Amino acid sequence: MRIIIVGFGVVGQSFIKILLSKSAELYSTFGLNPRVVACVDSNGMAVSPQGLDLSRLLEAKRMKKSVSAYYGNKKFCPSTSEIIESTEAEVMIEVTPTNLENAEPGISHIVSAMKTKKHVITVNKGPLALAFSSLLELAGYNNVRLAFSGTVGGGTPILEFAKKCLRGDRILSFRGILNGTTNYILSKMEEEGLTFQQALADAKQKGYAEATPKLDIEGYDAAAKLAIMANWIMSRKVSIADVSRCGISEVDLNAIRNARQKGKAIRLIAYCDNDQLNVMPLEIQPDDPICVSGTLNAVTFSSEYSGEKTIIGRGAGGLETASAILRDLIEIRDSISVPFDLMA
Amino acid sequence: MRIIIVGFGVVGQSFIKILLSKSAELYSTFGLNPRVVACVDSNGMAVSPQGLDLSRLLEAKRMKKSVSAYYGNKKFCPSTSEIIESTEAEVMIEVTPTNLENAEPGISHIVSAMKTKKHVITVNKGPLALAFSSLLELAGYNNVRLAFSGTVGGGTPILEFAKKCLRGDRILSFRGILNGTTNYILSKMEEEGLTFQQALADAKQKGYAEATPKLDIEGYDAAAKLAIMANWIMSRKVSIADVSRCGISEVDLNAIRNARQKGKAIRLIAYCDNDQLNVMPLEIQPDDPICVSGTLNAVTFSSEYSGEKTIIGRGAGGLETASAILRDLIEIRDSISVPFDLMA
Repeated sequence: MRIIIVGFGVVGQSFIKILLSKSAELYSTFGLNPRVVACVDSNGMAVSPQGLDLSRLLEAKRMKKSVSAYYGNKKFCPSTSEIIESTEAEVMIEVTPTNLENAEPGISHIVSAMKTKKHVITVNKGPLALAFSSLLELAGYNNVRLAFSGTVGGGTPILEFAKKCLRGDRILSFRGILNGTTNYILSKMEEEGLTFQQALADAKQKGYAEATPKLDIEGYDAAAKLAIMANWIMSRKVSIADVSRCGISEVDLNAIRNARQKGKAIRLIAYCDNDQLNVMPLEIQPDDPICVSGTLNAVTFSSEYSGEKTIIGRGAGGLETASAILRDLIEIRDSISVPFDLMA
Repeated sequence: MRIIIVGFGVVGQSFIKILLSKSAELYSTFGLNPRVVACVDSNGMAVSPQGLDLSRLLEAKRMKKSVSAYYGNKKFCPSTSEIIESTEAEVMIEVTPTNLENAEPGISHIVSAMKTKKHVITVNKGPLALAFSSLLELAGYNNVRLAFSGTVGGGTPILEFAKKCLRGDRILSFRGILNGTTNYILSKMEEEGLTFQQALADAKQKGYAEATPKLDIEGYDAAAKLAIMANWIMSRKVSIADVSRCGISEVDLNAIRNARQKGKAIRLIAYCDNDQLNVMPLEIQPDDPICVSGTLNAVTFSSEYSGEKTIIGRGAGGLETASAILRDLIEIRDSISVPFDLMA
C-alpha cells in the first residue's frame, strides 16, 4: 500500500518507527505492506515511486532537520498539493499542525488527496473541527475513506469505542476531559497549591504546554475535539464555532479551594447531548470516573440501555498518536476489496 | 433471523423487552428482524416455528412463572437439548445460570446448538471459563460463531474494546476489578467503616449479593471472567483452574484501615500477562483509574505503543447484559453473507 506522509514532526516520525519495527507482523497479521512513496515537511520533500528507505528518511530528518536532505543536493520544488495530486498512492496521512482559524494547510492537503481518489488519515483537528460534514461528503463522493482516530484522545480509542463497542445501544450524551494540558494545570493547582501561572510554567517546563498555550488554556483544543465527537458520535452538524467555550485562565486558587471545601474538584469539562455543546470549568465529584489527574483524558458515555461507560487514557504523545494512525491504516486495508496479493 | 432462547430470567426477559421496543430500528439500521422460535426456562418451554408473540411470552412468565404457560394447557416434554437440536433457527442464546463446577447445563446447550449449525450467544460464564478453547474449536469446525460479550463486564464492552479498539497495537497485560459485589463490599467497609459481615448483609439487602455469595466473595466469579479474558485477549489456553485465586473474606477492617493510613485502598484485583493469572485483594492507589467505588467494574489494558487505557462501567444488570446480547446478535447478522431479504 503506497502512502504519502504530509508533515513530519514527532507523530510522523513515530509512525515511521512503528512501521520499521513491525513490518513483518503488519504483513503477516493484516496483509499490510506499507510503502512510503512521498514524505513532505515544512522545508521540503522526498519522493520515490519505489518507496523511500524509512531509516534514511529518519536519518535525513535527524541530521538536516528536513526530509529534503534525503536525496542530498537534489531539490524538489512543486507545492505540497501538487505532490499529493501527482504522486500515485492509496493513502495520504496528514500530520501537519492544527490550525483552528482556517484549517490550512491541512484542509487543502486533504481535499487534494480525496480529489485524486486517495484515502485520507488525519490527526490534524483543524479541518474536521471546521468542516466535518463537507469533508465527509467529499470523501463519500470520491469513494475514499476519511479516518481520524488520532484527532481525539491521542492513542486512546475514544472515537472507535463510541462507534464500535456500543452497537445496538444509543449514546444519549457524553462528557469528559479532552485536553491533557489544562487537566495537568488544574491537578497541580489542586494537589500542590500552585497558582495558575506557576502551574502553567511547570507544564511548559515539562513539555505539556506550548510556548503560546492559548489553544489549550482557552479551551479551543477541547472545543475542536468536542466538535469532531459531536459530528461523528451524535450525528450533529456542528463546527467549533458552535461550541460554548470557556477556558481555565480565570480559575484561581480560591475557586479550587472553595470547590475542595465542598468535596469537589474543578475540571475543564466538555459536554455534548442533542441540544448542548459546551466546554467549561466545572466542579465535579472526585469519585466521578472522569475526575482524572495529570495529563490523562477521560470520557463518560451515557447510553440508553447499558448506562454509563468511561474510557480513560493518555490524550497525546508521539507514539500513542502514531498508533492511532496505524489503526486507521489497518481499517483502510481491510476495507479495500482488491485481491490480497495485489494490494498488500 | 430465527432465535432460540434458553434460560428466561432477568437478562432473557430484558432482551425480549429490547426487541419489543426496538424492532423497527433494528430492521432499518441493521437489517435485523429477529423471530423467537423457541423459549425455554427451568419449568418448560414454548415453541413456534412462525415466531412467538413476545408480549404474550413476557406475560406468561409474569403470570405463571414459566414460558410453558404460553400455550395454556398444552405441554411440551422434550429435553432442552432436543428442542435446541430439532428446532430450525440461526441463533441460540444461552442465558442459564453460571455453573463453575461442570458448566452444565449451559455447555450441553451450546454443544447441541453448534452441532446443528446454530450460532451461539452466551452470557453464561461457566462453559467458557472451563472449556474456552474446545468450544471455540467446535464453533470453527461447525462454521458457526460463538459470541460472549456479556460474560465479562455486563453491558460494558470490555472484550470488544480489547479486540476492536487496539488493532495494530499489542496488549502486554491487563488488570482490573471484574466483580461488582466484592467491590461494593470493600467500598462500604472503606467508606462507612462497616465490618465485612455488615457490608455483606447490606449488599444482600440491596440485591447486589446472592443468598449464597460464595462465587463472588471467594473470587470465583472474577476468576471465571479473567480466564475468559486471558483466552480471548491474550491467546492463552487456560481455564478457571489455572487462576491463582484469593477472595475477600479474610479482608477485615484492620487491613482496610492499615491500607488507608498508607494512602491506599484495598480492591479485589484480577491480573493477567503472559505468565501470571491471578485474582487477589491488593492495595492500590486511590487515584489509579481502576480504583472505582460501588458495583462498578474497571479494567486497565497496558499496550505496547499507546500506554495504559482504562474502561469503566456497570458490570451487571439485566438490561445492560441484554444490550451485550444485542451487540452480539448484530455482529452475527453482519457476518452472515446470505442476501439481506432472505436473512433478515
